[in-house]
Amino acid sequence: MSKARLYRGMRDFLPKIMIPRERILNEIRKIFQRWGYVPLETPAIELLSTLLGKYGEDADKLIYRLDHPDGLGLRYDLTVPLARVMSQYGQQLPRPFRRYQIQTVWRAERAQKQKGRFREFMQCDVDIVGTSSPVADAEILAISAEILKSLGLKNFKIVLNHREILRGLVHLAEFEEKDEMSVLRSLDKWEKIGEDGVKEELLSKNLDEGKIEKLLEMVSLSGGNWEIISFLEKYRDERILSGVSNIRQILQYVSSLGVGQDEIMFSPRMARGLDYYTGAIFETILPELPDMGSLTGGGRYDNLIGMFSGGEKIPACGTTIGIDRILSAMDELELIPEAHTNTKVLVAMFSEELATESLDFAQRLRKMGIETEVFPEPKKLGKQFAYADKWKIPYVVVIGEDEAKQGLCALKELSSGNQRIVKKDDAIRILLEVFKK
Amino acid sequence: MSKARLYRGMRDFLPKIMIPRERILNEIRKIFQRWGYVPLETPAIELLSTLLGKYGEDADKLIYRLDHPDGLGLRYDLTVPLARVMSQYGQQLPRPFRRYQIQTVWRAERAQKQKGRFREFMQCDVDIVGTSSPVADAEILAISAEILKSLGLKNFKIVLNHREILRGLVHLAEFEEKDEMSVLRSLDKWEKIGEDGVKEELLSKNLDEGKIEKLLEMVSLSGGNWEIISFLEKYRDERILSGVSNIRQILQYVSSLGVGQDEIMFSPRMARGLDYYTGAIFETILPELPDMGSLTGGGRYDNLIGMFSGGEKIPACGTTIGIDRILSAMDELELIPEAHTNTKVLVAMFSEELATESLDFAQRLRKMGIETEVFPEPKKLGKQFAYADKWKIPYVVVIGEDEAKQGLCALKELSSGNQRIVKKDDAIRILLEVFKK
Repeated sequence: MSKARLYRGMRDFLPKIMIPRERILNEIRKIFQRWGYVPLETPAIELLSTLLGKYGEDADKLIYRLDHPDGLGLRYDLTVPLARVMSQYGQQLPRPFRRYQIQTVWRAERAQKQKGRFREFMQCDVDIVGTSSPVADAEILAISAEILKSLGLKNFKIVLNHREILRGLVHLAEFEEKDEMSVLRSLDKWEKIGEDGVKEELLSKNLDEGKIEKLLEMVSLSGGNWEIISFLEKYRDERILSGVSNIRQILQYVSSLGVGQDEIMFSPRMARGLDYYTGAIFETILPELPDMGSLTGGGRYDNLIGMFSGGEKIPACGTTIGIDRILSAMDELELIPEAHTNTKVLVAMFSEELATESLDFAQRLRKMGIETEVFPEPKKLGKQFAYADKWKIPYVVVIGEDEAKQGLCALKELSSGNQRIVKKDDAIRILLEVFKK
Repeated sequence: MSKARLYRGMRDFLPKIMIPRERILNEIRKIFQRWGYVPLETPAIELLSTLLGKYGEDADKLIYRLDHPDGLGLRYDLTVPLARVMSQYGQQLPRPFRRYQIQTVWRAERAQKQKGRFREFMQCDVDIVGTSSPVADAEILAISAEILKSLGLKNFKIVLNHREILRGLVHLAEFEEKDEMSVLRSLDKWEKIGEDGVKEELLSKNLDEGKIEKLLEMVSLSGGNWEIISFLEKYRDERILSGVSNIRQILQYVSSLGVGQDEIMFSPRMARGLDYYTGAIFETILPELPDMGSLTGGGRYDNLIGMFSGGEKIPACGTTIGIDRILSAMDELELIPEAHTNTKVLVAMFSEELATESLDFAQRLRKMGIETEVFPEPKKLGKQFAYADKWKIPYVVVIGEDEAKQGLCALKELSSGNQRIVKKDDAIRILLEVFKK
């Protein structure tokens, strides 16, 4: 006999979680489609040669590997698979290529330190491939915002920064080019481990304390978006100026797409952990749930796809919608209505002899689009009602011997306890009206 | 630079495949819900102790293992995870528990011998746990039939048999009890390798030629369902009689649930490969596509869930809807309408100065529910129209300098080539009417 348990960091999604989850994923899918995105799916198992060397050394360690001679690993994100797809089927996918992808990814994280962080989780990605226009960046920001608003998470902030600005600052702090990504990866942890934690980690990497302090001072800027942007422009660093000019355009376009300027928070210390970003980077947070981490996160990555495509430069930009964290956040904010089942009617089974009466009637209800189930055994009616009650099925129909002879049925509404004996046709009419089918 | 390729047996689903795939999965989900089923999801990574020893020795070899000290493997089907869930959360899930589960599974098959057989594929499972009533078996058959009909696969046959009947026949052929499952596993290959192939495989297992011939003769019965059933009853074997009586009840109930008797084909040699079945077993085939294999397959398994639940006997019954094979079949029968994108309107970008005009107007269309994308760069209009044409986007809107000044836009229908200059409000009205939003 096996003892039933799950591997740590894995989760089962029981119906009461799955019902809202499916509803929310449908809502997100509709929004993606409304913005002109088409669906893509890629396999869970990829060659390690595809996965490794794209995310950075910290992330590479988190890739689950199969026990297999061909060198296989599990999908770590949906961006690298997109890059592979563009190189394999680019000719079939006219650019700009707007795609969404909703699939599970796996990361061998050491433990569940952060709320909503698991070893298996679903990502919903939207990306535009083949354009470096800031319209694309603005569109991705606007989609993120629309999704959060449509789910009732109205108090989000989009945190915005730019890798060119960060590179300029790292350069101004006089770090060597080779240390750039390592510095940014540590900076990325600011929200989790604080300024002191970042400093400590940078020191442990044998980086110069003076340079570290200089950088941390520069990125500690606070104030309104335009205040910070004007301040950064004063450095007159070529990279910073180029990043700031790009940010200005994105901020202009994003207004046309329904995002308020007060929903955006420019932050010179937000770094994003992955190596492949090259331009604007962004994530969304809920200030009312500071421990939640980012609900969405993405940016521009103009060099990644070229890594698979013989060096051809194919600009791209996109974001991940973290459905797991969004659901956790909605749960904490009590935005998820309780759902036990979609079933509207339980047709009870009075006796084995009358079983086909119940099956026939249930089938008529289903044909009218009413979600209906049959209790499959002629148990005591009390037990059948208790079952409907446990699953919160709103109506129970009973067809006993007398009713069967006269074409009638008993229709009971569980919430009120009201029961009436009606013609079967009338029961159907009543139910159609109640459920607006 | 990485060379982009996929591991053998894995597939990418490009948009033109994914668009109908999502539509079909939605349709299946709605049918499951109409029958009162609730959704469940379980993780891809399970402990090997959960996976091994449930499917049979052939199948155990096909489980992908992770390179991990904790002994982990990838989901092989959705039935064993359901059994684990029932043992872990049974108290929260009042029985009969009807659940559907739509997730990917992985099997390390040696090669793609059969059409639609891959190493990664999606399963859609429906199961009823907690009842041994033949109403449950009939319901599962009826759902399989309804799904195939609703997708236009009207010429299917449900192949039906019973493990008790098979066990009776194996017993009558005088095989030892210990060889039972091994014999059934070989018999299961009849449709793929033929009667001679089955015989050869059974001989290679060092089984007695006389017994093999006796069994193969008994299962070679052909004729109408009732003819075969009556013939089997003549053996007066207790197990066969019990199986036949169960089949008779299922055939009675299934009629009430919309399945024609001519849609069911009783076959005493259909065995199903997995060890855990105990009662009725069934699969659906398309006689017009004989190489396709079964599109759905399942049966009753009354002992599996108890393996996880301390020996408590929890009867269950269910089927897998093989979405990959169904899509292959629909493709061969030309039942899948061509779909390139869901986008209805491309708003062109006339110039960088007029970019926000395009963004504003696209946003108005989206608010009305019309799927709309913006061309993100002010390329030559010819190129922007060519892009719309490649993706088969039906309408293009252009807002040039003159139009922008007067609140107008050019609205072009690509299929007819008709273009008119209209007020923006009128363009929205026309598009709403065309797309019935």
